[in-house]
Amino acid sequence: MTDFAATKAQFHLPDGMIYLDGNSLGPLPKTAPAVVDAMMKQQWGDMLIGGWNKAGWMAQPTALGDQVARLIGAEAGHVTLGDTLSIKVVQALAAGLRLQPDRKVILTDNGNFPSDIYMAQGLIEALDQDYELCIVDPAEVAARIGPDVAVVLLTQVDYRTGAMHNMQSLTQTAHQSGALVIWDLAHSAGALDLDVSACNADFAVGCTYKYLNGGPGAPAFIYVAPRHIGQVEPMLSGWLGHAAPFDFAPDYRPGNGIERMRVGTPPVIQMASLAAALEIWKDVDLAQLRQASIDLSEQFIDLVEENCPMLRLVSPRNAAHRGSQVSFSFSEGYAAIQALIDRGVVGDFRAPNIMRFGITPLFIDADDITQACAIMADVMNNRLWDLPEYKVKSAVT
Amino acid sequence: MTDFAATKAQFHLPDGMIYLDGNSLGPLPKTAPAVVDAMMKQQWGDMLIGGWNKAGWMAQPTALGDQVARLIGAEAGHVTLGDTLSIKVVQALAAGLRLQPDRKVILTDNGNFPSDIYMAQGLIEALDQDYELCIVDPAEVAARIGPDVAVVLLTQVDYRTGAMHNMQSLTQTAHQSGALVIWDLAHSAGALDLDVSACNADFAVGCTYKYLNGGPGAPAFIYVAPRHIGQVEPMLSGWLGHAAPFDFAPDYRPGNGIERMRVGTPPVIQMASLAAALEIWKDVDLAQLRQASIDLSEQFIDLVEENCPMLRLVSPRNAAHRGSQVSFSFSEGYAAIQALIDRGVVGDFRAPNIMRFGITPLFIDADDITQACAIMADVMNNRLWDLPEYKVKSAVT
Repeated sequence: MTDFAATKAQFHLPDGMIYLDGNSLGPLPKTAPAVVDAMMKQQWGDMLIGGWNKAGWMAQPTALGDQVARLIGAEAGHVTLGDTLSIKVVQALAAGLRLQPDRKVILTDNGNFPSDIYMAQGLIEALDQDYELCIVDPAEVAARIGPDVAVVLLTQVDYRTGAMHNMQSLTQTAHQSGALVIWDLAHSAGALDLDVSACNADFAVGCTYKYLNGGPGAPAFIYVAPRHIGQVEPMLSGWLGHAAPFDFAPDYRPGNGIERMRVGTPPVIQMASLAAALEIWKDVDLAQLRQASIDLSEQFIDLVEENCPMLRLVSPRNAAHRGSQVSFSFSEGYAAIQALIDRGVVGDFRAPNIMRFGITPLFIDADDITQACAIMADVMNNRLWDLPEYKVKSAVT
Repeated sequence: MTDFAATKAQFHLPDGMIYLDGNSLGPLPKTAPAVVDAMMKQQWGDMLIGGWNKAGWMAQPTALGDQVARLIGAEAGHVTLGDTLSIKVVQALAAGLRLQPDRKVILTDNGNFPSDIYMAQGLIEALDQDYELCIVDPAEVAARIGPDVAVVLLTQVDYRTGAMHNMQSLTQTAHQSGALVIWDLAHSAGALDLDVSACNADFAVGCTYKYLNGGPGAPAFIYVAPRHIGQVEPMLSGWLGHAAPFDFAPDYRPGNGIERMRVGTPPVIQMASLAAALEIWKDVDLAQLRQASIDLSEQFIDLVEENCPMLRLVSPRNAAHRGSQVSFSFSEGYAAIQALIDRGVVGDFRAPNIMRFGITPLFIDADDITQACAIMADVMNNRLWDLPEYKVKSAVT
């Protein structure tokens, strides 16, 4: 039984803030600064170059990858960490296309995170003008899958609306047509009770700084199904993905299994912070997490709809089709989010008119939701957002 | 006038250790743990998502890039940080090839770091089978440059021998044949008095965890000459290299100038550590650093040759052709390095028989060199390396 009061106590949450943005950047685990400080002083400081072996830095991407593997339902030994999500997307995409030499369509949807689409565009431009990136509405993906589709590249949970694809059925549909599927789990890992193995996902990628709380710029992860990894020829064939990096051999030879998806030197300081965050996850039952997320989300939807009639729900009402965020549309959504932030309710805005709120049971409870909704009702009904300073957009929202 | 006693005092150097491996991983700046701790608690902890704007995280890759720019003689505003060196190599290479559509040869040498060669191999496999990777001896590079060469990809300082290419003359030779040059400055930045701008380098890349002391896994850097950047179409077209990332537009549009070489979310915790290291560099005169490096290197060579006749210098004897490391060959080099490490003299081993020592005036002085050489004489002349436990290789050396 996950004790969510206990997990909440393990995070630093600023006084007076209700943080409904853990789907963008998770909060600081209280232990993380000390873990990082010890890594810096006792490992980097005292071991220096010896840290690669003695402190296990070299093995860390795959060791921590095993902890992430459990959270996404992957087989142990088939997840590794490093780089950024955009890099992991292009690694998976390049590998998937190479496994499908006779097919030229990359299928995605317009709910995919733009960086995934940009990475696909850049890769196509570089690789071969014959590739076609086909972007359809999320609801049309299944129907568009056909014998010309090499790879289906989808983010499971839409970053704007929270609408969730059915991983199992879409993967099955793709496989029936001979297509491979890359699942971007940026808004899924640490939010849902995932099972990429049971779903027969071909590739999965994601980041660790959102629901997993690894810290700003925490490394990304990549999973390759055991049935594929032996055939994967990495485009980004860096030395730490080599079978024997320290032989300094003249030719690249892919490393064993998932190790070949490593590229360069791992970000050891970021890894220490992530390791602290993953400690909290060790005791979390994901089915209970998912149920808590649904309960809190429904409480939030009910209270907002009851008290803020000007907000329109854009997330699916049916929890089975919704990830762990709730979004509302409002024409002055940007200003409204700024006014809420000023009153301690932190959500975020996504163009053109979406107010987005992450539901993260690890550190948000029913009292937080009640309190946040009371503040929202005040801000919305009393038009507290209607001030000029709330309407000037900053670079990052 | 750089006060090297003052810079030395700014590093944590373990008692009884003479660290001649700053060319592999620089030591811990004393301020770095506190800078990182403050970033974690006051920025991540208290600002949470607001840190991207309020703490300047989003602007940091290019702001810190300007500090690196000074150290490599680049124009301000033309260096950005992120990812790993292997990723930056492939970004530069893909961009360079695209600028040269009618040429199919990538020229490198067998003194290049293997990961650079591996990344080129992986890119060629993915891109187009017509590309040819031509690998010659370092001394043959200039002669091989011709009208078929698209890009010359070189590490300026050979990671094994410390032999140094002449950046100015090779770049000029390449340009005379219409080839572009990518300089990997992994073993140059923070070691030499560089001027990539005066040399007309087309691209330069490097890492910040060696001589720059940014910490294990610190981000890499990339420079693109101002005359090229407007024409560069990034293959790794991630959202943070987009002209307007937070518009979430459906199509990639390259960012302004060097910003387009950014890919994904920057590693903010690593950046804080690097920022602490770069503070030390602000007062360093690079010409004085280079002279100090030459003086210490010559002292080291003289003492080793005088006292350890079994070691053969494999670095160039002429300082003008040598970077900031000194390497000797010895058939039992691996064991000898282990014996030295056990006695507090930390160098490293590179296959097949190279004992490698980094000369880093920021924290190594003439007394250190004298003392290290006395220990080396004892270890070598008394065969203290001749123990079975020194002969078992570990994974990382």
